[in-house]
Amino acid sequence: MKKVAVFMGSKSDLELMKSCFDTLKKFEIPFDVYILSAHRTPDEVAEVCKTADENYRVIIAAAGFAAHLAGTIAGKVTIPVIGIPVDNSSFKGFDSLLSTVQMPPGVPVATVTTGKAGATNAAVLAAQILSVGYPELREKLKAYKKEMKEKVLKANEEAKAYSYNP
Amino acid sequence: MKKVAVFMGSKSDLELMKSCFDTLKKFEIPFDVYILSAHRTPDEVAEVCKTADENYRVIIAAAGFAAHLAGTIAGKVTIPVIGIPVDNSSFKGFDSLLSTVQMPPGVPVATVTTGKAGATNAAVLAAQILSVGYPELREKLKAYKKEMKEKVLKANEEAKAYSYNP
Amino acid sequence: MKKVAVFMGSKSDLELMKSCFDTLKKFEIPFDVYILSAHRTPDEVAEVCKTADENYRVIIAAAGFAAHLAGTIAGKVTIPVIGIPVDNSSFKGFDSLLSTVQMPPGVPVATVTTGKAGATNAAVLAAQILSVGYPELREKLKAYKKEMKEKVLKANEEAKAYSYNP
Amino acid sequence: MKKVAVFMGSKSDLELMKSCFDTLKKFEIPFDVYILSAHRTPDEVAEVCKTADENYRVIIAAAGFAAHLAGTIAGKVTIPVIGIPVDNSSFKGFDSLLSTVQMPPGVPVATVTTGKAGATNAAVLAAQILSVGYPELREKLKAYKKEMKEKVLKANEEAKAYSYNP
Amino acid sequence: MKKVAVFMGSKSDLELMKSCFDTLKKFEIPFDVYILSAHRTPDEVAEVCKTADENYRVIIAAAGFAAHLAGTIAGKVTIPVIGIPVDNSSFKGFDSLLSTVQMPPGVPVATVTTGKAGATNAAVLAAQILSVGYPELREKLKAYKKEMKEKVLKANEEAKAYSYNP
Amino acid sequence: MKKVAVFMGSKSDLELMKSCFDTLKKFEIPFDVYILSAHRTPDEVAEVCKTADENYRVIIAAAGFAAHLAGTIAGKVTIPVIGIPVDNSSFKGFDSLLSTVQMPPGVPVATVTTGKAGATNAAVLAAQILSVGYPELREKLKAYKKEMKEKVLKANEEAKAYSYNP
Amino acid sequence: MKKVAVFMGSKSDLELMKSCFDTLKKFEIPFDVYILSAHRTPDEVAEVCKTADENYRVIIAAAGFAAHLAGTIAGKVTIPVIGIPVDNSSFKGFDSLLSTVQMPPGVPVATVTTGKAGATNAAVLAAQILSVGYPELREKLKAYKKEMKEKVLKANEEAKAYSYNP
Amino acid sequence: MKKVAVFMGSKSDLELMKSCFDTLKKFEIPFDVYILSAHRTPDEVAEVCKTADENYRVIIAAAGFAAHLAGTIAGKVTIPVIGIPVDNSSFKGFDSLLSTVQMPPGVPVATVTTGKAGATNAAVLAAQILSVGYPELREKLKAYKKEMKEKVLKANEEAKAYSYNP
Repeated sequence: MKKVAVFMGSKSDLELMKSCFDTLKKFEIPFDVYILSAHRTPDEVAEVCKTADENYRVIIAAAGFAAHLAGTIAGKVTIPVIGIPVDNSSFKGFDSLLSTVQMPPGVPVATVTTGKAGATNAAVLAAQILSVGYPELREKLKAYKKEMKEKVLKANEEAKAYSYNP
Repeated sequence: MKKVAVFMGSKSDLELMKSCFDTLKKFEIPFDVYILSAHRTPDEVAEVCKTADENYRVIIAAAGFAAHLAGTIAGKVTIPVIGIPVDNSSFKGFDSLLSTVQMPPGVPVATVTTGKAGATNAAVLAAQILSVGYPELREKLKAYKKEMKEKVLKANEEAKAYSYNP
Repeated sequence: MKKVAVFMGSKSDLELMKSCFDTLKKFEIPFDVYILSAHRTPDEVAEVCKTADENYRVIIAAAGFAAHLAGTIAGKVTIPVIGIPVDNSSFKGFDSLLSTVQMPPGVPVATVTTGKAGATNAAVLAAQILSVGYPELREKLKAYKKEMKEKVLKANEEAKAYSYNP
Repeated sequence: MKKVAVFMGSKSDLELMKSCFDTLKKFEIPFDVYILSAHRTPDEVAEVCKTADENYRVIIAAAGFAAHLAGTIAGKVTIPVIGIPVDNSSFKGFDSLLSTVQMPPGVPVATVTTGKAGATNAAVLAAQILSVGYPELREKLKAYKKEMKEKVLKANEEAKAYSYNP
Repeated sequence: MKKVAVFMGSKSDLELMKSCFDTLKKFEIPFDVYILSAHRTPDEVAEVCKTADENYRVIIAAAGFAAHLAGTIAGKVTIPVIGIPVDNSSFKGFDSLLSTVQMPPGVPVATVTTGKAGATNAAVLAAQILSVGYPELREKLKAYKKEMKEKVLKANEEAKAYSYNP
Repeated sequence: MKKVAVFMGSKSDLELMKSCFDTLKKFEIPFDVYILSAHRTPDEVAEVCKTADENYRVIIAAAGFAAHLAGTIAGKVTIPVIGIPVDNSSFKGFDSLLSTVQMPPGVPVATVTTGKAGATNAAVLAAQILSVGYPELREKLKAYKKEMKEKVLKANEEAKAYSYNP
Repeated sequence: MKKVAVFMGSKSDLELMKSCFDTLKKFEIPFDVYILSAHRTPDEVAEVCKTADENYRVIIAAAGFAAHLAGTIAGKVTIPVIGIPVDNSSFKGFDSLLSTVQMPPGVPVATVTTGKAGATNAAVLAAQILSVGYPELREKLKAYKKEMKEKVLKANEEAKAYSYNP
Repeated sequence: MKKVAVFMGSKSDLELMKSCFDTLKKFEIPFDVYILSAHRTPDEVAEVCKTADENYRVIIAAAGFAAHLAGTIAGKVTIPVIGIPVDNSSFKGFDSLLSTVQMPPGVPVATVTTGKAGATNAAVLAAQILSVGYPELREKLKAYKKEMKEKVLKANEEAKAYSYNP
């Protein structure tokens, strides 16, 4: 299976990205991790992008503040780019959400939830996208959905204890 | 090629979606169009979703206000769902953006730009996603990128007339 | 008395919902508790909704992030649905408020305050709504109002100590 | 059937409220209309509220800017109060939404969508609430839901013409 | 000197209001403290307001959430009403700011800074307003300004140590 | 009667300020009008402020964008300063509201509604403040309140025509 | 004098930029105009940046939506980059403001006002920056300030006609 | 080298400003530090500004709340003024950002990121601006950029350990 490339704008995003890594592994999707900044290492980002269409099938990019990383990559590749707005500035991801999602016509970034929930969702979305070419992922995604559902249903069982029928 | 399903929450979204249709056609991606509301026709949405994993490879969903359409579909399928936040309420798409992108962990919606720019971007993202399974789209995407670039470069030529060198 | 159905999108909402449960009990309103997610368990939500018009008189639904739970239910029933925007994302309930309240024409969600205050208010609103059919609740609501008032008046008595008349 | 009281903060809200009136009439729900301001005619608001618990079963209140009307009424009655945030200030209803929905614990306002969509939704919510005591409204609400659905399904039929299957 | 009336919507606002009390005392302005809620004790608020034009010269009102207290009072009196938006909800005073300041034409609330800074500023503004009728306050205000200035100038002296002249 | 000084940041604010002028005239409050910018004519603003404590009893200042005018004046005088956030930038007065109201502790600006409603409210607030020293204004304010009330009550009479009692 | 480089993300920004061009010309500052998009022509942007430190002394970049242009350039040059947030999306420049100003530590963008006011301000800021190396600009800036002041003072003269002294 | 003047609105900003001081020192740029408030010490601010065009080449100003300090200075000097929006109010720098950046046409403030990141960026921007007149700074800026890059590349090396190739 072609790999996913996971970019982070900063080392400090590693903690947030743990759930992204764990979820990709759960789907047995191979991935390369890059810590590269759109502003501090533009050449290195460009370098990876040059062969990204060949080496990868999906790119995930997490960044905070004026989060340009996902958009910068999207300008250089033709494979899908998923953006995770990191919520580490004064504005709690509001700036990174708008910087990631509001891309001009023709250069989309597939933006997911801000913060930790987004890290998980980026991995699930990557699996869904890959399933277009790797149908075996479809079953894993169904199993994942079922697992989530069962966890909720278990909680729902426990919830009955809170009902009140005087 | 497996088709894309394009959902709109309301007939009034048709004008905004024109650029989405045109862009999909440009990529020669076949698509079915549905006008179905998550809240007014939940059963019909569910019905389409039941076979969506078989019939489609990507879903695009455009909705305004408390835009639940993309999220509702995402809860029922395992193929990628792209959400377009329509900017038709008092809050100019701010409500639909948050309602579309802030999905809980495990159920992503690939959210694009609000409004008309998003309609175009949803189509391009769909093409990028489909290219994972249909490599012939890769070349079309490269041509699309080149075309955009050339349009900008032509404008850039004209821009020189605005330079000022007294 | 017909029961109230109280939905939560996640087990983690239980703490927030305590004041909702306590307030419903105070009014001796029987209720069933469900932990069901609009996105992870859409079929189970639909299942409960199928008979909700018969089994319940009011539905309360609490959810965070792109809070679709209340709206999803509102699309499937004709009894009143009260939505509590949970404030657990990066945006402190701003996303869940807009996702809950900005419903399209024809499918209202009776939205209350974000967070813990909303959990209490949902219960009081449920009691007010039920009082339309169960007039005995009117007296309890008047007593509740009086109790609140007396608590404030007691604080007002204590407040005099802060006055300053040199 | 006990009547609904519909309050507006200003004569200029009449246009927006047309869809509220029309929808209430559609459900054959009798209603009294008041144009009374929480700030300019507080005594008259209080006067109507004094007997509101007897005369009415639901109150609808529409106001813009720092919209206090619904909340003021909610502080004086025990029947359900529905608030419509009017979008007529510089902030397009953002101020009236927060002023209406963010009520302190114990005094809920059932808030609906901002603007015209909210005017319709307030009427539908009123019908849903009244149905608790007037079960004949249940059928009308089901018919209303069906009518909405059929309108969407008709649009969905027309939507097929936009599909593209080269 | 005619007194100032200081209202709080809740006992929990007392801590925030300490700086308001202290500043009023600094100016030797007598004041009465009320803990009264616009929604829980509307009659008591109305009662105080009935004689407020006679008993007081300025009113200060602090409230959080959908902060209606200052506006409610402003609708009932003709003396100036100062509103302090308390920052205790999920939205950190953003809701109370808009609920306090966005009053409709004809019924102003003199709104000050959100939170603790606002509590101080309300007291200073009250002193400035009272100085219109009690010119002796003018000197105290000038002394207060001078004191603030000297504190800053002292800090400015210390700041020199941070200068850097290699 | 001591005069009010009315400042505008720009000539283009004149239209908005018409309702402020008209309302001050209604109360027969004399006023001087200045068009002076905090940033373009800081010395002239300072010059007027130097004698403002003697010449005026209240200052009204209207400004848009990063509205510093009211705050700048407040830093130089000890009489009350009323700020009107003009809604002429891309952000429709959101920037000018925060720039006007969020003054640091010790230097309050009495902020009113954004836009045209604020222009009226600034004049009414000025009259209320002046009434502390000029009790004759109290009666005019009561008459103004009565007039507003009667206008509403007249509208309320007409509103009855919209009631529906089948 | 070394030139300024003025970038626009799109041809449609030309109208907004007119005041930028006019103001630069007023200061007799030579400039080159580029219409280049960070996402559609990243290589061409990089190409210009490669020699920008030699060819230019200041860069101005105007962009809307998720405005990455200024930030992208700032990552590649060491001369000052001024960013103008264009207000052309649904969010009226709120997205472009945050995308432009919230740059991570080490890579500043000197951000000015959104929209047309920002286009003028970018030119003035460029002149101020250039004056560090070209002291002759200092006098022109003083003349510009004086001219602005005189325009305001002229308006202030006319403003007297609005004063009211019965 | 002509010095930079660094202003803070309050002593409490010193901690935030440490990274500004450290970065300026790294570039060996001499600077004077002032703690002066636009509102509490307007005369002293004006005093420093009077000779600022002679004594300094760049001014940095950090302020929170309705941050007027940078704008006030910009109105009085012709050298570039950099504004740092401090994030210490209820609104986490949202108020200070808008108060700093939204300057009217003709009087720009070069605004940087909110909070600590902005303190660093102000220093870097100051170095970039000074480099127009002091070309020796160009090399230091390139070294700084290289250092940032190397830090990222080192992190990127470590990042490889997180890659997953089953």
